Amino acid sequence: MHRPVAALLGPVLACLAAASPARADEGMWTFDNFPRDEVRQKLGVDLGATWLDRVRRSTVRIEGGCTGSFVSPNGLVLTNHHCVTACLRQLSAPGRDVEAAGMLARTPREEPRCEAEQVSVLTRIEEVTAKVLAAVADQTGAESNKRRKQQLTALEKACEDTYKGMKDPHSCEAVTLYGGGQYFLYHYKRYDDVRLVFAPEYEIAFFGGDPDNFEFPRWDLDFSMLRAYENGKPARTPDYLRWRRSGAAAGEPIFVAGHPGSTNRLMTVAELQFEREVYLPRWLLRASELRGRYLHFAAASPENARIVTEPLFGLENSLKSLRNQFYALLDENLMSRKRRDEEKFRADVARTPKLASAAGAWDDIDKALAGYRAYFDRLTFIERGAGFQGELMHYARVLVRAAIERDKPNGERLREYTEGALPQLKQDMLASNPIYPDLERLRLGFSFEKLVETLGPDSPVVAKVLGRDSPQNAAAALVGATGLADPALRRALWDGGRAAIEKSTDPMIRLALRVEPDARELRRRYEDQTEAVLATSGERIAAARFALQGTNTYPDATFTLRLTYGTVRGWREGDQDIAPFTDLAGMYRRATGQPPFRLPAVWLDRKPKLSLNTKLNFSSNADIVGGNSGSPVLDEKGRLVGLIFDGNIHSLGGDYWFDPTLNRAVAVHPAAMLQALEKVYDAGALVRELTIAR
Amino acid sequence: MHRPVAALLGPVLACLAAASPARADEGMWTFDNFPRDEVRQKLGVDLGATWLDRVRRSTVRIEGGCTGSFVSPNGLVLTNHHCVTACLRQLSAPGRDVEAAGMLARTPREEPRCEAEQVSVLTRIEEVTAKVLAAVADQTGAESNKRRKQQLTALEKACEDTYKGMKDPHSCEAVTLYGGGQYFLYHYKRYDDVRLVFAPEYEIAFFGGDPDNFEFPRWDLDFSMLRAYENGKPARTPDYLRWRRSGAAAGEPIFVAGHPGSTNRLMTVAELQFEREVYLPRWLLRASELRGRYLHFAAASPENARIVTEPLFGLENSLKSLRNQFYALLDENLMSRKRRDEEKFRADVARTPKLASAAGAWDDIDKALAGYRAYFDRLTFIERGAGFQGELMHYARVLVRAAIERDKPNGERLREYTEGALPQLKQDMLASNPIYPDLERLRLGFSFEKLVETLGPDSPVVAKVLGRDSPQNAAAALVGATGLADPALRRALWDGGRAAIEKSTDPMIRLALRVEPDARELRRRYEDQTEAVLATSGERIAAARFALQGTNTYPDATFTLRLTYGTVRGWREGDQDIAPFTDLAGMYRRATGQPPFRLPAVWLDRKPKLSLNTKLNFSSNADIVGGNSGSPVLDEKGRLVGLIFDGNIHSLGGDYWFDPTLNRAVAVHPAAMLQALEKVYDAGALVRELTIAR
Repeated sequence: MHRPVAALLGPVLACLAAASPARADEGMWTFDNFPRDEVRQKLGVDLGATWLDRVRRSTVRIEGGCTGSFVSPNGLVLTNHHCVTACLRQLSAPGRDVEAAGMLARTPREEPRCEAEQVSVLTRIEEVTAKVLAAVADQTGAESNKRRKQQLTALEKACEDTYKGMKDPHSCEAVTLYGGGQYFLYHYKRYDDVRLVFAPEYEIAFFGGDPDNFEFPRWDLDFSMLRAYENGKPARTPDYLRWRRSGAAAGEPIFVAGHPGSTNRLMTVAELQFEREVYLPRWLLRASELRGRYLHFAAASPENARIVTEPLFGLENSLKSLRNQFYALLDENLMSRKRRDEEKFRADVARTPKLASAAGAWDDIDKALAGYRAYFDRLTFIERGAGFQGELMHYARVLVRAAIERDKPNGERLREYTEGALPQLKQDMLASNPIYPDLERLRLGFSFEKLVETLGPDSPVVAKVLGRDSPQNAAAALVGATGLADPALRRALWDGGRAAIEKSTDPMIRLALRVEPDARELRRRYEDQTEAVLATSGERIAAARFALQGTNTYPDATFTLRLTYGTVRGWREGDQDIAPFTDLAGMYRRATGQPPFRLPAVWLDRKPKLSLNTKLNFSSNADIVGGNSGSPVLDEKGRLVGLIFDGNIHSLGGDYWFDPTLNRAVAVHPAAMLQALEKVYDAGALVRELTIAR
Repeated sequence: MHRPVAALLGPVLACLAAASPARADEGMWTFDNFPRDEVRQKLGVDLGATWLDRVRRSTVRIEGGCTGSFVSPNGLVLTNHHCVTACLRQLSAPGRDVEAAGMLARTPREEPRCEAEQVSVLTRIEEVTAKVLAAVADQTGAESNKRRKQQLTALEKACEDTYKGMKDPHSCEAVTLYGGGQYFLYHYKRYDDVRLVFAPEYEIAFFGGDPDNFEFPRWDLDFSMLRAYENGKPARTPDYLRWRRSGAAAGEPIFVAGHPGSTNRLMTVAELQFEREVYLPRWLLRASELRGRYLHFAAASPENARIVTEPLFGLENSLKSLRNQFYALLDENLMSRKRRDEEKFRADVARTPKLASAAGAWDDIDKALAGYRAYFDRLTFIERGAGFQGELMHYARVLVRAAIERDKPNGERLREYTEGALPQLKQDMLASNPIYPDLERLRLGFSFEKLVETLGPDSPVVAKVLGRDSPQNAAAALVGATGLADPALRRALWDGGRAAIEKSTDPMIRLALRVEPDARELRRRYEDQTEAVLATSGERIAAARFALQGTNTYPDATFTLRLTYGTVRGWREGDQDIAPFTDLAGMYRRATGQPPFRLPAVWLDRKPKLSLNTKLNFSSNADIVGGNSGSPVLDEKGRLVGLIFDGNIHSLGGDYWFDPTLNRAVAVHPAAMLQALEKVYDAGALVRELTIAR
């Protein structure tokens, strides 16, 4: 599924520096630099400013890693089922498994709130490159890095202040493109009251489960509906997408608007090697072991299975995705092409006198990454949390750090605790998510075991965490004794700030306080010794690339709004042609009655009422990655002709390059969604709202 | 621990062809080509034929992956605790955990039989290179491969026939060295009646558990004693090792005799890349997930923990070992050194007219491995059993295949079913090992899930295995319905041969019969298209290497007897000196009271009686790998000064090269073993037997 890889066990190395020029037959383009001429020449479709503006205002970012789109004037949002699983979990309880059973609100009054959910619309793009570069001029290393961040925080704050007291308060986010070649402020209108309208059963939304995930042909009804509210009422959203029930024909041009999370196509070879040699293998081996524990936990009881469904899906999804990225990087063909491209680029830079300042950037990156290896494991486990998994320990660490950071002036804070970031963070901390002690013990015990295994039993931090206790006992004691499952305690600690935290006797808060100095020291080392070099070198390389190759390139994905294009099409796999459409008949044929190939009872009951030749899923060569989940697929008139939910297995190498022959995006067809609402779920009111929308 | 990586989920690619010349300051040398002169010059020790012969006859191979040595004239064998875990498990039952509690037989009458165990002594090395090459002369490809195997089988049979009716029946094994440069018959005297004499508690044998495994400093009492029997009586073993209680001093020369299992130092770059890109990542990810399931299974109850101890140890040991091998291969420094070495070697070959026939060998290997990738997953899961894990399914598959193979003439059989191989196989099949249905369900269910995941739900073999059932249900049904846990049924099926198998209605036998044609077809494809090319190319490359570099090199390890040498020494780790010895005091300091740092009660009771400065473990720069577990460490007089049980973390890259600055072997000190027997276990008779032996 095309959700960005969750930072379950540590984040992906941020994308950085530029090497090979992007070709204009691919790309995740920003709305203000869309290659209109090339697309007109290639597809015969001319997208004007009106089209672009309307699609931009109709597309929403679902915070946490997805995309959606308004599909009615009353704030109705279409997205994937797998983008609302956290909400379904929040609404579930023992004996009431909303994720499994699905739900339909027949009136707005029946729409329950997704407490942690926010959706955002990008209203303005403001370039601030000159202001950022001015702030770091004449600075190098750690000082330059610090000033850059302070400037970004200051620009965000000033931007948000201009909206103070206005009808539509906005949040502003600094966006770095091309690894430092350009800086922007993205202005977002935020909806923090989001409610659930419709979700189908898990078994049809994720039919085929992990075995079929990232595969095509495919038969998933991976859609759901949310609604944005303002002042307690459905939001007014005059920009929204109309449905084209018949969808797009094979070969027809299509466009995808969305928020691709992260790509690494512009990484230097040294960065790719770091991914291949250090980051990916470590992450994959830990995640595989955790998967084994989750699956065994799930097998113990139906209640366990329910509890672990959502984290297990996220883990398996990331595993399949990163595993195939890793295989792509292990392929010497890809790597030697990257090496050749970089050598050519560096040679071009070397022979261009005005680019002298860029020439050393690659060597600086090499050196920084060599140093990074020495403390990467400690950073991953102590600062980035691989050693402290689970919801409860996450609460403890964020509460502790937020209390410290909020005492500082805005410009001095870690970037994820600035004034602009706090509202979402606070909403996350105080949302009444269910806590499952068995699962918490599993996750914390696992991460303590990995902490010992990775840093060794003699590590001073291990001693701070465990004393002389075993990982499993220490985890069980902490989960048993902490009060952080109670949102009231979290609110008290949040509101009470530093004084409340320091007075707290909660054992998880105490543990978080004990490791905080170690975590901060590692963070400081990362920022000063690694990130600082990568950022400065990234700016130098990006400047060289613009100078040599112009701006006919697209930046790596950064979970910001992009538009990509292509046509509806299958591909050739070995000696076989893969057709671009599947239908309901194929889904019924595939249903063995055993999970994950079991259909919900209502789909067996209603089968006689359905047109089995209704198209269900389709593939296209649009260039997408994780974060595009829930993206609308549009035709040349801007009508909704599909809902992205996945890519094929070949698309997973798309993190590093786009393979036009094999890389395919996978979407739900509008005909299947409408037929399901009409004939299976009897969702008359919802269909009328969508029909009015047409 | 230095046991070879078990073929838990599929075997390691066989080592093959020669590239870089070995230096004479390292190496696993055969006893008939020991570099006596170099060692005399370097260490000042001259090992004559008497020394070599006596040590060879005192060293035993423990079938299944370990080494041992005779330490009394009455068949007493010293080896590691972790080399007898299968026997400890066989002797255990619910409520009687021999692996945890240890055991001591006070008289031979109390020594229980290890049913599946065999030990072997190498009595003669016979070179047969000319005979093998003659058999394949003028043949290429699949035909050459077939004839080579037939010839090896015929030579083994003829060799064994010469011992028929003699007092000491022998078995003969063909051994391929230098990837095909030389062929030998190794003549072994076999002991198939092996009994357990002594094992300490698991907690002291494997003190520090997985976190400390492959680490040094170290505090493990990883030793045990077996006894070889002949005709129901302790075997007479006039060649045995005397103990030197004080051990060897720091800097003193030492020698290690043993059976290193497998190294890949002579692999071509293409083969290394296959390991790095295909074999290792797949194996590691599967094994990590299985580890997660085992650990969760163990946490459910003390009985589960007991059941899974031995397979979990094997898995974690292999995981840590192969993970570090993988990291070594991911290191571009190692890989580019290998590339440079190979380029130079190939250039030397190319400019030597008489080596023209070798010049194309590397390209042939490249092509064969490219083809291998296309069916490697299917081969691994269907033929090599990654899709059919667990003892019961293993019985079913071997019984089915043995029945078919035994109907063929000896020379036509698969090599693992020849007359020479059958006795050990039969002993394995009929031994009354305990079967644990919960663990069998876990293992079979896991492997069925991976089968579906890897080959896809649409694979025809998946349909044969599962029908429309889910992996877990299918596994549970098979484990519940099969009768193969009963040794009597296995004996009936073994003795009944093909007719009995074909008549059997046992569902696991039926399943094994259903997949047998697919498995055989994959095996045939591997032998004809991949192995054949690798074998022929290996012979060509080895011949070129001998021509250019002479015989001052050692062959890759093949689980056959080798002798290596070095000195007792630590190493420098970063800015720290690691001393070569640890002592009992250090062990007590490290004991937190929590597993895996918990000592058995008797060790706490007896602490006052012990000399805490007694040396416990020590490190040396002897060149060893998995399979050397249980190897005797000898001084220049051939006295026992240690018992190899592990290497440090740096030694794990030793699969691909020997790093003299960091690679260290780890052994138990004789003083600690003797003190434990005397002061902790009150093993007076055993100490007297060893003392007489001195």
